[in-house]
Amino acid sequence: MQLRCMCLVIRAPHDLQVEEQEAAEPGPGQVLVQVGFGGICGSDLHYFHDGGFGTVRIKRPMILGHEVAGTVTAVAPDVSRVKPGDKVAVNPSRPCSRCVYCLEGLPNQCLDMRFYGSAMRDPHVEGAFRNLLVCDAVQCEVVAAHVPLQHAALAEPFSVALHGVSRAGSLLGKRVLVSGCGPIGTLAVAAARVHGAAEIVAVDLTDETLAVARAMGAHQTLNVAQDSGWVARYGADGSTRKGSFDVMLECSGNERALRAGLDTMRPRGVVVQLGLGGDVSIPQNLVVAKELSICGSFRFHAEFALAVRLINEGRVDMRPMITGSFPLSQARQAFELASDRKRAMKVLLDFAPDAMAA
Amino acid sequence: MQLRCMCLVIRAPHDLQVEEQEAAEPGPGQVLVQVGFGGICGSDLHYFHDGGFGTVRIKRPMILGHEVAGTVTAVAPDVSRVKPGDKVAVNPSRPCSRCVYCLEGLPNQCLDMRFYGSAMRDPHVEGAFRNLLVCDAVQCEVVAAHVPLQHAALAEPFSVALHGVSRAGSLLGKRVLVSGCGPIGTLAVAAARVHGAAEIVAVDLTDETLAVARAMGAHQTLNVAQDSGWVARYGADGSTRKGSFDVMLECSGNERALRAGLDTMRPRGVVVQLGLGGDVSIPQNLVVAKELSICGSFRFHAEFALAVRLINEGRVDMRPMITGSFPLSQARQAFELASDRKRAMKVLLDFAPDAMAA
Amino acid sequence: MQLRCMCLVIRAPHDLQVEEQEAAEPGPGQVLVQVGFGGICGSDLHYFHDGGFGTVRIKRPMILGHEVAGTVTAVAPDVSRVKPGDKVAVNPSRPCSRCVYCLEGLPNQCLDMRFYGSAMRDPHVEGAFRNLLVCDAVQCEVVAAHVPLQHAALAEPFSVALHGVSRAGSLLGKRVLVSGCGPIGTLAVAAARVHGAAEIVAVDLTDETLAVARAMGAHQTLNVAQDSGWVARYGADGSTRKGSFDVMLECSGNERALRAGLDTMRPRGVVVQLGLGGDVSIPQNLVVAKELSICGSFRFHAEFALAVRLINEGRVDMRPMITGSFPLSQARQAFELASDRKRAMKVLLDFAPDAMAA
Amino acid sequence: MQLRCMCLVIRAPHDLQVEEQEAAEPGPGQVLVQVGFGGICGSDLHYFHDGGFGTVRIKRPMILGHEVAGTVTAVAPDVSRVKPGDKVAVNPSRPCSRCVYCLEGLPNQCLDMRFYGSAMRDPHVEGAFRNLLVCDAVQCEVVAAHVPLQHAALAEPFSVALHGVSRAGSLLGKRVLVSGCGPIGTLAVAAARVHGAAEIVAVDLTDETLAVARAMGAHQTLNVAQDSGWVARYGADGSTRKGSFDVMLECSGNERALRAGLDTMRPRGVVVQLGLGGDVSIPQNLVVAKELSICGSFRFHAEFALAVRLINEGRVDMRPMITGSFPLSQARQAFELASDRKRAMKVLLDFAPDAMAA
Repeated sequence: MQLRCMCLVIRAPHDLQVEEQEAAEPGPGQVLVQVGFGGICGSDLHYFHDGGFGTVRIKRPMILGHEVAGTVTAVAPDVSRVKPGDKVAVNPSRPCSRCVYCLEGLPNQCLDMRFYGSAMRDPHVEGAFRNLLVCDAVQCEVVAAHVPLQHAALAEPFSVALHGVSRAGSLLGKRVLVSGCGPIGTLAVAAARVHGAAEIVAVDLTDETLAVARAMGAHQTLNVAQDSGWVARYGADGSTRKGSFDVMLECSGNERALRAGLDTMRPRGVVVQLGLGGDVSIPQNLVVAKELSICGSFRFHAEFALAVRLINEGRVDMRPMITGSFPLSQARQAFELASDRKRAMKVLLDFAPDAMAA
Repeated sequence: MQLRCMCLVIRAPHDLQVEEQEAAEPGPGQVLVQVGFGGICGSDLHYFHDGGFGTVRIKRPMILGHEVAGTVTAVAPDVSRVKPGDKVAVNPSRPCSRCVYCLEGLPNQCLDMRFYGSAMRDPHVEGAFRNLLVCDAVQCEVVAAHVPLQHAALAEPFSVALHGVSRAGSLLGKRVLVSGCGPIGTLAVAAARVHGAAEIVAVDLTDETLAVARAMGAHQTLNVAQDSGWVARYGADGSTRKGSFDVMLECSGNERALRAGLDTMRPRGVVVQLGLGGDVSIPQNLVVAKELSICGSFRFHAEFALAVRLINEGRVDMRPMITGSFPLSQARQAFELASDRKRAMKVLLDFAPDAMAA
Repeated sequence: MQLRCMCLVIRAPHDLQVEEQEAAEPGPGQVLVQVGFGGICGSDLHYFHDGGFGTVRIKRPMILGHEVAGTVTAVAPDVSRVKPGDKVAVNPSRPCSRCVYCLEGLPNQCLDMRFYGSAMRDPHVEGAFRNLLVCDAVQCEVVAAHVPLQHAALAEPFSVALHGVSRAGSLLGKRVLVSGCGPIGTLAVAAARVHGAAEIVAVDLTDETLAVARAMGAHQTLNVAQDSGWVARYGADGSTRKGSFDVMLECSGNERALRAGLDTMRPRGVVVQLGLGGDVSIPQNLVVAKELSICGSFRFHAEFALAVRLINEGRVDMRPMITGSFPLSQARQAFELASDRKRAMKVLLDFAPDAMAA
Repeated sequence: MQLRCMCLVIRAPHDLQVEEQEAAEPGPGQVLVQVGFGGICGSDLHYFHDGGFGTVRIKRPMILGHEVAGTVTAVAPDVSRVKPGDKVAVNPSRPCSRCVYCLEGLPNQCLDMRFYGSAMRDPHVEGAFRNLLVCDAVQCEVVAAHVPLQHAALAEPFSVALHGVSRAGSLLGKRVLVSGCGPIGTLAVAAARVHGAAEIVAVDLTDETLAVARAMGAHQTLNVAQDSGWVARYGADGSTRKGSFDVMLECSGNERALRAGLDTMRPRGVVVQLGLGGDVSIPQNLVVAKELSICGSFRFHAEFALAVRLINEGRVDMRPMITGSFPLSQARQAFELASDRKRAMKVLLDFAPDAMAA
């Protein structure tokens, strides 16, 4: 019996179509997942609007998507990790386990990474915006029965945030600045909260995203478009402190946001850079004089299982993150909405048969 | 008996004069040091040429200098740390021991730091380019009898280099890139060597400084003005590595040097920024993707005693560092020579009475 | 006007009496606190039952107690940190801020520590089990209006637990074993939870304390008096793992508990030793082969402010910890109850005038 | 052509014989090494005297040895890492590269480790005391032409010492106590020296080993059998310090040595436990009060390449370590000598054809 598989394919900027493909069958160690929901990520939007980002460009048609959760419908005979009927979040990251970085315990730096829905390599790696997905059992983390698949679909971006937080070391008793409250920033608020930060201040330019940051656990939020004095309030005061924050989670990729944040950091403070944004100018003398550290954070690895666990246990509530979901047939509308920061945080695609037919 | 004290005073750019002042007497906990030699530092040169750097400007006459070694000639009755006749290196750094950063173990971040020969505060803190210096006994580290005072005068810049190395964590087995081979860079080579780096590659634009770097322990030196291929040789090769160096000690403050170095770093590599240079543009996406860390390093603290110990034990040989010494009366010539990177590494002032009279 | 101050004084084992003393007046930088509640600690019980522990012995009468919270009733003119009417938890730890360890940022290792109600030095340092207490303003952390003083009195032992957790580094995604569920162990559960531990398993020999551990956030509790198979379940299985836990918080001071826990640790696991217990025999070859770390944890410092903050924000609920409170006049009964692990977790003394008169 | 291979086989305690076996041929990725010298290790001596240690017992005949260096005589066609004629040190450690610990970057904790000359698994893993050895090219580190193979044979125990040092973190400016000056202890002195320790004090019970420790770089050596006051001199003095050493490298496995060392440690000091010795009793209250860390160190991984590099560059001089070498035919005498701590540091077997025939 051949299964019908509907996929969301991008061929060029704005050329987004649902296409039917033959579904694969699970090989050894593999499972078949009926995808429930998939979250639209910033990189999906870059492919949609611009055909890529930096040197990464779509060179041939590619299925988009890497934030999905669904239900296992079949497993290969050798699989014991999951069973049919299990709800699962699917880890889109598949390191090779053989290269020098994998063997150093840095699989997110794998030299032969196969990451869903990415045009970094050519041929591109197909994505997970499809109603039927064959993946390795080891990519699946079991989602608790009471957790909606919509929430589980956020395990991937939450993993990115948790990895960022892990780069800062222990947050116990620390004051944390989260800069930029898109999906990664707001999830970074939640990650810092669950990791024990004493105080979390989130800054952004739009009130709508700050409201979500507050709902995700920020102690305080600042619309820095309207509050020109915040850097002075948290920065050096000339006599009693050189800054207020122990850690900054920089999720905007914006130069001005980074520079403002640097002014508010304590000596030996750690800036974790999660946001991407091309070249940025930094005040080298300030970095030297306060002995700040700016540390890049890229993707995740062990954090995926942790993300699912935290969602399963209710230690993070994903509801404030979810703007809404659209049937696959309305993918274009979903992508348009997801592109509007004022109206959207995380927009989901619904892969249920009825939804797709809608 | 009033002692005659000759000081090197700067009043404005290029206005450098030897002036006679009354020498102070040692108070409780203090000692009188007959200064032997003093090294001319980059900040001294900035005062000389430009009247300061950044927002730090000479507002009134100030004695220059903070890299000195000499001989104790008198001690207060309560002093046991040193005795008359001891050769000592004088730590120019005097944190307050009371502020929040001092009590956190970060005295180099002291809110009330008094650092010799610095116009950062006003009134300025007088420097140590004088033949007679009253200082706290605790600032003195005893120099072994066999060590020339010329070498001991380098304890201060060597401390800066050692502090930089300490910011990188353990260097055991690490490959280290030293970028910029002025006095701090060449001493950073020595610091990395004594700290167990497996391999040290030093880069600069002038062969003369690279020769010193080699003499101070670099395994390899590259004149990157002439070797355009070095980044490709050490950087990502597309299949087996993303870069070669675990640690970069950036001592140039130069944007191009920093950017080139970033290309040659391994994933999770650590860049210690020692050089100062104003705003620099960094490739944020590279920092994120390779998860690099850029960590500022400022001055030193416990490293001063370590520097003297390493010099005393002969574990670092300072001879290649020393370009020559000039009597105080020829201070201007000394400053001019010190400003020429091709001809000078470390130029010393000689405070011996005969030298001054010369 | 002279204030009447009632104090709980120990003169010898079991010789516990309420005595009236003259209350001091706040000097510069000081405040007067009307103590509300005070928690009875294990060290108080050691003084009560045995006259001390190890080499620490009561040599003269001493006021007991170091876990107190109350209300500020007067402040010296130079105090701005707190004001009359503020509810505060009082930090019983007073490091000297001048010794070598204080200046290294290790005030809990102070060479001249003055810790309330401790016979470590002679003359002993008087404790805080008194209805009126003069202390430095800097010892006071403001307690939120909605927080009962009974809860605030637990800030001190919670600080001990938080310091222990801080010794383990980041707990993000870690599996944590808490061994020994007395007051410190159960608070260590809460500390590990708030610090982001992925999974917390608590073990003890009595069901009553395990019930509290569960209420404080343990994912699982094991009565290891009845469950002889637990070490096998979590330890090496000969093929897929050498142990299960990344971190052990050892709060029992018991040799068997420590040894059992070591068997269940993963390679490179970290054991934080909080419990005290004299000499213990450890399997050195196991520590070597799995490269475990056993790290002592002693008292706290910055964690006190953090403890109050976490209580203020409701991120830790202290209710399950509190067994009950007794008026000062019934201190002996309170100490007897506190000595019974099956019946008591944290027993409080109530210093309210009515309570004392009861 | 079949090659003649002479092997040193142990069948039972004291039953040590040279046996002839068929030499294997290099398969893909493999090389044939003509072994030059092999060092006798403590574990070899345990097999020889006792048939094993702990639960590790010889159950069937096994070739001993894991510290060897030799010359490549043939390589498989796919090998480029080494070529015939290269002098190499052979890494006896072969982790699986697939288990959970290998993928975490902890190959020395491999669940399926194959380590030369070890009876830990059954069938045992054959050792390298043989004149012809087929091994993976990746096990070979090229030894510089000027380095005697006798020195290169010490790369393995030196790796153990370097790994121990790496467990202590950066040694820059640290005071280090090395306890127990057998081969690992004396090499730990060298490892600490090359890693930048400010001061190294080595203690042992025999003057002969202390002389070697001094030659390997100890600043000071103490025969603690004769110097009963050393703990008091370095330990707490009641007012200005709680101890002197930042790091202890415990290489004796002896309880008294460990306990004495703990008394001399500073607060937050790190004890790296390298020596093996069964159960040891530790003063838990001291570990807690000074917040010491006791960290196990087991074998090595990346340190093997580093060891060879340091030997190649002359940064460590192995001459003081080598007691002498014996032809294979006199293996029994070599083992007897190696068992005498007063007369022997490192005893080598010589596998040269002439030597074997001797």
